[in-house]
Amino acid sequence: MENFADRLTAEIEAKGTPAVVGIDPRLELLPLPLRRKFEDRGASLRTLVAAIKAFSCEIIDVVAPHVPAVKPQIAFFEMYGWVGLQAYVEVVRYARKAGLLVIGDIKRSDIGSTAEAYAAGHLGQVMVSGRLVEMWQEDAVTINGYLGTDSIEPFLKEVNTRGKGIFVLARTSNPSGGEIQNLTADGKPVYMHMADLISHWGAASVGQRGFSSVGAVVGATCPEEAREIRAALPRAYFLVPGYGAQGATVADLKPAFRSDGLGALVNSSRAVIFAYRRKPYDEEYGDRRWQEAVLAAVKDMRADLMPLFTGTAI
Amino acid sequence: MENFADRLTAEIEAKGTPAVVGIDPRLELLPLPLRRKFEDRGASLRTLVAAIKAFSCEIIDVVAPHVPAVKPQIAFFEMYGWVGLQAYVEVVRYARKAGLLVIGDIKRSDIGSTAEAYAAGHLGQVMVSGRLVEMWQEDAVTINGYLGTDSIEPFLKEVNTRGKGIFVLARTSNPSGGEIQNLTADGKPVYMHMADLISHWGAASVGQRGFSSVGAVVGATCPEEAREIRAALPRAYFLVPGYGAQGATVADLKPAFRSDGLGALVNSSRAVIFAYRRKPYDEEYGDRRWQEAVLAAVKDMRADLMPLFTGTAI
Repeated sequence: MENFADRLTAEIEAKGTPAVVGIDPRLELLPLPLRRKFEDRGASLRTLVAAIKAFSCEIIDVVAPHVPAVKPQIAFFEMYGWVGLQAYVEVVRYARKAGLLVIGDIKRSDIGSTAEAYAAGHLGQVMVSGRLVEMWQEDAVTINGYLGTDSIEPFLKEVNTRGKGIFVLARTSNPSGGEIQNLTADGKPVYMHMADLISHWGAASVGQRGFSSVGAVVGATCPEEAREIRAALPRAYFLVPGYGAQGATVADLKPAFRSDGLGALVNSSRAVIFAYRRKPYDEEYGDRRWQEAVLAAVKDMRADLMPLFTGTAI
Repeated sequence: MENFADRLTAEIEAKGTPAVVGIDPRLELLPLPLRRKFEDRGASLRTLVAAIKAFSCEIIDVVAPHVPAVKPQIAFFEMYGWVGLQAYVEVVRYARKAGLLVIGDIKRSDIGSTAEAYAAGHLGQVMVSGRLVEMWQEDAVTINGYLGTDSIEPFLKEVNTRGKGIFVLARTSNPSGGEIQNLTADGKPVYMHMADLISHWGAASVGQRGFSSVGAVVGATCPEEAREIRAALPRAYFLVPGYGAQGATVADLKPAFRSDGLGALVNSSRAVIFAYRRKPYDEEYGDRRWQEAVLAAVKDMRADLMPLFTGTAI
């Protein structure tokens, strides 16, 4: 079973970019051709979820040749109950068939046998009909580590035996992310204590390319913190949210990368998938050509990130 | 819309106990009559999930007259994919119909519009077929607050407008819970910083009985921490895991309660629902009379907790 970090590095190199597209299918933001199908408020749950799934799969069709991975956000499916989650796993499967790595943005956290259940369901296998089956089928998932080592161990088992990956929240990109994460304890901030744990958790899954399959979520909106975490975690992949719609720039992203241009995945969700609503794409493409807006936005994102990837960013 | 904490207090008083039964339907621990249905390893997913659902609903039948609330653990359903989660919502609905409050143990955490999606799905309403529908239907859920205030606000909206509740992880009961939570920052531990946030988040939802609908998860395995958190959060309900199978005793629980015997919910999962496997119930009841073992265990738990509830525990 190939190491996740090695697979990720190979895909980043093959696609020539560290760009990841976040699949956040918010119903109210879908382009008109999809929105029209449920605009009468009497649309059934199946109709709503079908629109979300169709949107997600069309995004995958557009971006698959251009990025190494997608990051579907499970919450936007979970809000439509189990019917929504049926679409989530179909989207995960669709993305994998399109040759993409899938990072499930699930941010689960629990302990003991409960953590084992999440790990088995998302990264492991479950015995069904006489064979071991992957239920949710992600290549990697995001995890909240507030509960400590024994909340992570069941996931590490899947990482170390099945070539899966995890990204543990270290410093998140939201305005109040620092309330707990930036508290200073024993001379360093909580996010650095989390980084130390992540380093420890990832030691057993360092692949041939020198990266661990245990990565860290580090927001692009906090470049100073990213620099500090990068120094403590030279072998971790950073999954970096906050670029694009959340306002971070390429300069803010630089500390997340190693000097060789590897080591970070930069996620953009809204700015790519809803590009048809945003300048400069809205006037040219609009609702009807929303897929072309996605393509233009993902190409612009690739170009934007290229100096980081080639190690030539100032 | 009645305040959640007021509803909870009324139910605790009506049932005469702060005992909560955790519904953790682990397939491999199910009693023989249910296990037999899928013991050939060729059982289909539908068959496995039907066994989990049947077990959960029978637990509810047994405990409904004796406890104010149940706490289904979503991970044990989620590990069986969307089919498992279809059973989860059916179990939630079944418990509510049986007159129980349902605390969904989901420990979700995210930010911005993603947190809104979780909040809408679990505690709020979603427009479907022309009307607002509750998707997951819990009365309250558990939340991980590592991401700070803006990860909690969407849930507070549902708490404050729809009579729902949340329990935020403060100090968890697992062995490594202290790795982050017990770090000392600015003169006090991280879990006390979290307690301060919980106090702030809960200020707007204090009901007529003086309790807030924003509670805290505080493990029974850390009574010293519970005492400290109780002092900082006189109006919060504590949801206390770790009693029973995790080894905490009644003496360990005392600090979670106020002197009037209110303010805490004590959860037991395995020790009640799998009582048929444990002393002293195994010999008397065994697999075949597993429901009677559940009843005996929940009655023993009630008796055990009674001195806390009546405020007469030493």
